[in-house]
Amino acid sequence: MTVPYKRLNKDDAVVLLIDHQSGLISLVQDFTPSDFKNNVLALGAVAKFFNLPTILTTSFEQGPNGPLVPELKELFPGAPYIARPGQINAWDNEDFVAAIKSTGRKQLILAGVVTDVCVAFPALSAIAEGFDVFVVTDASGTFDKTVQQAAWSRMSAAGVQLMNWFSVACELHRDWRNDIEGLGNLLSNHIPNYRNLMTSYFTLIGK
Amino acid sequence: MTVPYKRLNKDDAVVLLIDHQSGLISLVQDFTPSDFKNNVLALGAVAKFFNLPTILTTSFEQGPNGPLVPELKELFPGAPYIARPGQINAWDNEDFVAAIKSTGRKQLILAGVVTDVCVAFPALSAIAEGFDVFVVTDASGTFDKTVQQAAWSRMSAAGVQLMNWFSVACELHRDWRNDIEGLGNLLSNHIPNYRNLMTSYFTLIGK
Amino acid sequence: MTVPYKRLNKDDAVVLLIDHQSGLISLVQDFTPSDFKNNVLALGAVAKFFNLPTILTTSFEQGPNGPLVPELKELFPGAPYIARPGQINAWDNEDFVAAIKSTGRKQLILAGVVTDVCVAFPALSAIAEGFDVFVVTDASGTFDKTVQQAAWSRMSAAGVQLMNWFSVACELHRDWRNDIEGLGNLLSNHIPNYRNLMTSYFTLIGK
Amino acid sequence: MTVPYKRLNKDDAVVLLIDHQSGLISLVQDFTPSDFKNNVLALGAVAKFFNLPTILTTSFEQGPNGPLVPELKELFPGAPYIARPGQINAWDNEDFVAAIKSTGRKQLILAGVVTDVCVAFPALSAIAEGFDVFVVTDASGTFDKTVQQAAWSRMSAAGVQLMNWFSVACELHRDWRNDIEGLGNLLSNHIPNYRNLMTSYFTLIGK
Amino acid sequence: MTVPYKRLNKDDAVVLLIDHQSGLISLVQDFTPSDFKNNVLALGAVAKFFNLPTILTTSFEQGPNGPLVPELKELFPGAPYIARPGQINAWDNEDFVAAIKSTGRKQLILAGVVTDVCVAFPALSAIAEGFDVFVVTDASGTFDKTVQQAAWSRMSAAGVQLMNWFSVACELHRDWRNDIEGLGNLLSNHIPNYRNLMTSYFTLIGK
Amino acid sequence: MTVPYKRLNKDDAVVLLIDHQSGLISLVQDFTPSDFKNNVLALGAVAKFFNLPTILTTSFEQGPNGPLVPELKELFPGAPYIARPGQINAWDNEDFVAAIKSTGRKQLILAGVVTDVCVAFPALSAIAEGFDVFVVTDASGTFDKTVQQAAWSRMSAAGVQLMNWFSVACELHRDWRNDIEGLGNLLSNHIPNYRNLMTSYFTLIGK
Amino acid sequence: MTVPYKRLNKDDAVVLLIDHQSGLISLVQDFTPSDFKNNVLALGAVAKFFNLPTILTTSFEQGPNGPLVPELKELFPGAPYIARPGQINAWDNEDFVAAIKSTGRKQLILAGVVTDVCVAFPALSAIAEGFDVFVVTDASGTFDKTVQQAAWSRMSAAGVQLMNWFSVACELHRDWRNDIEGLGNLLSNHIPNYRNLMTSYFTLIGK
Amino acid sequence: MTVPYKRLNKDDAVVLLIDHQSGLISLVQDFTPSDFKNNVLALGAVAKFFNLPTILTTSFEQGPNGPLVPELKELFPGAPYIARPGQINAWDNEDFVAAIKSTGRKQLILAGVVTDVCVAFPALSAIAEGFDVFVVTDASGTFDKTVQQAAWSRMSAAGVQLMNWFSVACELHRDWRNDIEGLGNLLSNHIPNYRNLMTSYFTLIGK
Repeated sequence: MTVPYKRLNKDDAVVLLIDHQSGLISLVQDFTPSDFKNNVLALGAVAKFFNLPTILTTSFEQGPNGPLVPELKELFPGAPYIARPGQINAWDNEDFVAAIKSTGRKQLILAGVVTDVCVAFPALSAIAEGFDVFVVTDASGTFDKTVQQAAWSRMSAAGVQLMNWFSVACELHRDWRNDIEGLGNLLSNHIPNYRNLMTSYFTLIGK
Repeated sequence: MTVPYKRLNKDDAVVLLIDHQSGLISLVQDFTPSDFKNNVLALGAVAKFFNLPTILTTSFEQGPNGPLVPELKELFPGAPYIARPGQINAWDNEDFVAAIKSTGRKQLILAGVVTDVCVAFPALSAIAEGFDVFVVTDASGTFDKTVQQAAWSRMSAAGVQLMNWFSVACELHRDWRNDIEGLGNLLSNHIPNYRNLMTSYFTLIGK
Repeated sequence: MTVPYKRLNKDDAVVLLIDHQSGLISLVQDFTPSDFKNNVLALGAVAKFFNLPTILTTSFEQGPNGPLVPELKELFPGAPYIARPGQINAWDNEDFVAAIKSTGRKQLILAGVVTDVCVAFPALSAIAEGFDVFVVTDASGTFDKTVQQAAWSRMSAAGVQLMNWFSVACELHRDWRNDIEGLGNLLSNHIPNYRNLMTSYFTLIGK
Repeated sequence: MTVPYKRLNKDDAVVLLIDHQSGLISLVQDFTPSDFKNNVLALGAVAKFFNLPTILTTSFEQGPNGPLVPELKELFPGAPYIARPGQINAWDNEDFVAAIKSTGRKQLILAGVVTDVCVAFPALSAIAEGFDVFVVTDASGTFDKTVQQAAWSRMSAAGVQLMNWFSVACELHRDWRNDIEGLGNLLSNHIPNYRNLMTSYFTLIGK
Repeated sequence: MTVPYKRLNKDDAVVLLIDHQSGLISLVQDFTPSDFKNNVLALGAVAKFFNLPTILTTSFEQGPNGPLVPELKELFPGAPYIARPGQINAWDNEDFVAAIKSTGRKQLILAGVVTDVCVAFPALSAIAEGFDVFVVTDASGTFDKTVQQAAWSRMSAAGVQLMNWFSVACELHRDWRNDIEGLGNLLSNHIPNYRNLMTSYFTLIGK
Repeated sequence: MTVPYKRLNKDDAVVLLIDHQSGLISLVQDFTPSDFKNNVLALGAVAKFFNLPTILTTSFEQGPNGPLVPELKELFPGAPYIARPGQINAWDNEDFVAAIKSTGRKQLILAGVVTDVCVAFPALSAIAEGFDVFVVTDASGTFDKTVQQAAWSRMSAAGVQLMNWFSVACELHRDWRNDIEGLGNLLSNHIPNYRNLMTSYFTLIGK
Repeated sequence: MTVPYKRLNKDDAVVLLIDHQSGLISLVQDFTPSDFKNNVLALGAVAKFFNLPTILTTSFEQGPNGPLVPELKELFPGAPYIARPGQINAWDNEDFVAAIKSTGRKQLILAGVVTDVCVAFPALSAIAEGFDVFVVTDASGTFDKTVQQAAWSRMSAAGVQLMNWFSVACELHRDWRNDIEGLGNLLSNHIPNYRNLMTSYFTLIGK
Repeated sequence: MTVPYKRLNKDDAVVLLIDHQSGLISLVQDFTPSDFKNNVLALGAVAKFFNLPTILTTSFEQGPNGPLVPELKELFPGAPYIARPGQINAWDNEDFVAAIKSTGRKQLILAGVVTDVCVAFPALSAIAEGFDVFVVTDASGTFDKTVQQAAWSRMSAAGVQLMNWFSVACELHRDWRNDIEGLGNLLSNHIPNYRNLMTSYFTLIGK
């Protein structure tokens, strides 16, 4: 009766970063600016750490929406980068969908700005085409908590799995032993209180 | 297992504005008054911009509920206007349903006051008759957040898609190129921070 | 795929008021005390107004849980009143279920303290036996918002419809013309801002 | 022991609007964007309505801070307009202070972006020079509520009177009879629920 | 260095209820409507219980502001009732001030709508004339918490003592033995959880 | 169409306490520290009171995550205790699953830190294998409310029942008469306001 | 111009615990029940740890207010215990004031229920008689945050220093070396996250 | 009557960073962890940018409090670093006070963990010795908002000026022209939305 467990798999997942542009981000008010920046960069680091194919797309970079934030540009220099000429739903852009399909992967990890449009529309479209869709809720921002909650509800009802960057990282990693230092670094960089735990720990054991 | 993606289509959608009356709006406390006013007028502007058939209805305008707010009256001078003689659920009013059915459209975009009654009742009734129902959550208000959340939950469980005026506009528009200036104006009028982006942009490029 | 619309019908509905006891109510912190008192008494007034069969039940009135609040006792002097000897889930008490079944009605309108136990347990049990269940969320209280939200989620997932006292009143009444003065009085007594609208209105028209 | 009552007087008051620029406003998160826009424009309307001398100033309009929002520019076409070449505290700009002093007025009504800097600094400087200072808290915005509260505390401790646009309007107007229609229009335009009261009222009395 | 303790004294206190009108109350959003109604009526009951001289005043009852709420009218049938012809600050109305001065009392207990204007203005004026001023913060309402906090800050800085209806009642009563049943009834009627304590208690001791 | 009612049964339930470690708990910010500590210990007491088989597991106790909190260690000295060598999802650890399966029980009561990973992953895995899963939301903590809500939504969509420690206790106990003193003690220790009710009650009846 | 620094001194301080009674505490809603219980017991432990003279007082223990909570009774078996026969302001009770004065100390550390009455009244009275008054804000509770904030403002304006139990402990202790283990235990018992730090630390250093 | 304006001066200011240690920071819950980290590092960058003498101090780095966070250690390699042997109030440590006095500066800019102790105590002590004290509220953290507000109130009443890192930077800088690029970089690094403004701007003007 319920949605079956779809578990993220680093060999079947692709990351879609949608419209994280300097102008659009100024519209986001459901996270503090520092939290949101940290979450987006953390998701970027996750994609990088697991070598997931990552696809970037933007909407009207030349206009008021502004360019993709430079940190993401630098993080994924060779990634497919689809500057959509006008389609609001990235799924309506053939190049974007082709880039996804060319990876041969079926698990889509999505984040973007704004949640109710740039994230929700391709998420719903992808579900309808049979993809498994995982929205990274804390790397996706919008106008306020009310809009956020309505968008989450619409996506969840359609079968989207709502996650956060940390749970995406952990579900992909599966076992600390796969690279304990690598994951530790990632967490240290993006979870201040985890960094504090590590600082105390390594100080005490004399490293 | 899940609700299939129903995508708004400007050729199949009709807008229902229910009981946005001067008295009833004074009951709304789940939005700030300025936010709510802006959201309702934004939805009106969306309906206008896409030339969607729009149906107005009110409940007891002569009594304490007060008249339809004048801005909506002026925005839709020729729209069907059903002053219900007493039915609380607008769907119980034959003229209202007839007005909808006469459009031949199957996608209902609803907003009203109060969410848990004037919106939820016709939304649930319309779903039961096979319509696709999209509730504009931020142009619908009620007594407080607790009542709002219960009403959202009831509607979502019944298959209603919860949206906001901005996502409705974007899903209908689909591609900025369909009328970039028109959509830009609409956003400029109702999203202050987007207007700010445009102000900065056009100043810099010298327009 | 979704829960079909169950519409309240005053000829098929019965109201269950569970454990609104003086001690237990002091545990409620997801509403302000004045809001909660108002909501509970409003639901009582709704039951009375529509002559709905109403069943009262309590748990250990002699102990720290305290007696049923006197206002409810006075409002329903002849109602079935089941002081449960120990069952936490009122549905485990045969007299309680028998009282419900003897009404021949299938729509249960429930409220009580605390939401996650005294409301959720019989709500889930009743659903499992084929009743239609409507929980009055704002006349049901518990320890805090987190517990409230978890309980709502559990009940909603099981098919319970989440409502509030005002939407219950309106769905039962259906048409203001059925008794405009009666409904007006009820709203005036329990929605301060609606009373204000009426005060202004009747003053202006000179009544 | 306490701060004596300084009462606003329309013959002794001057309005200072500081750095309401399209870029800087995107930093404001202690108000919703619609609320903030409404409050700023309401204060502008108040200044206009009472014919108060009004002085505009901006900081680096050519850079990322962006231009003064066009609504204010249009509202005060002939007002002194000091584009500061670099001073953060407007009081450090001689032209700005000269413009104030040339009015001969001693009551300064200030608002701006951001509260903790562009408002607080000149407010504190003006107090130190013996002016009476009234900060319009709801037409002044900043990063978040924590910063807002710290800035309010610092200003209040220095003798600044914290007000809001509505109380400024009312303290200046003093008596409705001075221009009942004018004040009514102003409130109708900027307090949605007051407009609703007026709509209901004028409908009922047949105007 | 600090404000000396001014203690309320039932032989020196007068209660001023300012503009609790049906229209204006619909503007209040810093309290839930039920909480606010309860607080205002509780303050009325306190004034009555201690036989304090009470003065009522309103602003433009014939217009959109609406009439004084009927409960207060009925509670104080013989009280001085000053329908101000236009003065926003009640202290600008000679009849109002005369009514206060004719009581010979120096402690003013004020509440009204809206806090930042109808309460703050006369509070500040009265302080300036040497009265001791106590504002009942929870029986005074305004547009939102931000405005509330600014108004509290302005009044507190001027020497106003910020209280709530319950602390007013207790400071006036001084000793339960002065009328234990009377105070108990008052609390039972307006503090739901205190009523619950009393219900449990009197049930257990068999009264 | 909906999730059928799964009712907790003390003969079929097993409690899983996952990663309540001194380091990880410092990451929790969706509960106050005192509330969270109380909830976790309350759940421990529930498991003990009903003699439920209880399984403890931790992740990297030697590192920054820190050891299991000593209170839980002491409460369950003989319980299976699986210190996972690296698996993030406890369900990936064969010993953990074997310990569960060896109980022969099908109802899993889970809590842990952090909710979105250490709780959600095994909860989803267990559902997929046919277990009934009950997550104790208030004994499970994570970074903030946003992450909490996304994790709840994902689990609920998969068929997990969201509960709280008190509803778990009550659903297991079923009837106060099964051990009135025992349950009373448990509630007295972990619900301060219930303890207060008991204190007042036993004082009055002279015990 | 400002309040001079009054520093707590364990040889000059006395602790006053006012009306922490089982009934009255059920009125407290400005803290979660677990937080409030923890804070009150922490303050008790502080008084004990520093051997401060401690004075207990209650109001109508035989009635609905209920008895002093048993934990405090047990903690201070030999402390002066003034069951006031009716005075609401404990300072109006001669025995209470005499008990304070007999200690010869001038620094009063106060906490109680409810903040706006049982704490504020004696705090203001004591200030007026020249005592230094320190209110432990987090061990004092009342109806809601609004009442709390008004009471804090009134006390602060009168020269009361607002503190919390942890700052009281630290200001009295002055130097960890005075009893590092003792203070560590106290913090471990009442600050869950500090206990976690200690658990991790002592585990790592092998104690 | 009021506190005179003390204006920060980069030639008279010294920065005191108190107890920003890895263990203690895990106690902070009045800011999100990312916000707090950003604010502390921003304040560090401000001190560096203006070449202000900066003094570091810690409490029991070897114990559970943990070491100073490494970012601050690296930022100020040559700064006076006082590891206090036990004094809770840093002002009780002669080396700390001597380090301050040796700078010859009178304006103290303080931040630390926790606000109510490690910040408030030396702030109050310094005021008492005639220093001007500026507390950076958003780089100082504590247990929760209630403790934060009480600590702010105590400090403000004593004459401490409450600021935030951004207002400190701007008051020290005074004029953008003093180093426009330097200040721009600082803001870009620590105010994400300001960085976005700069990104859009420099893209458009082609840099």
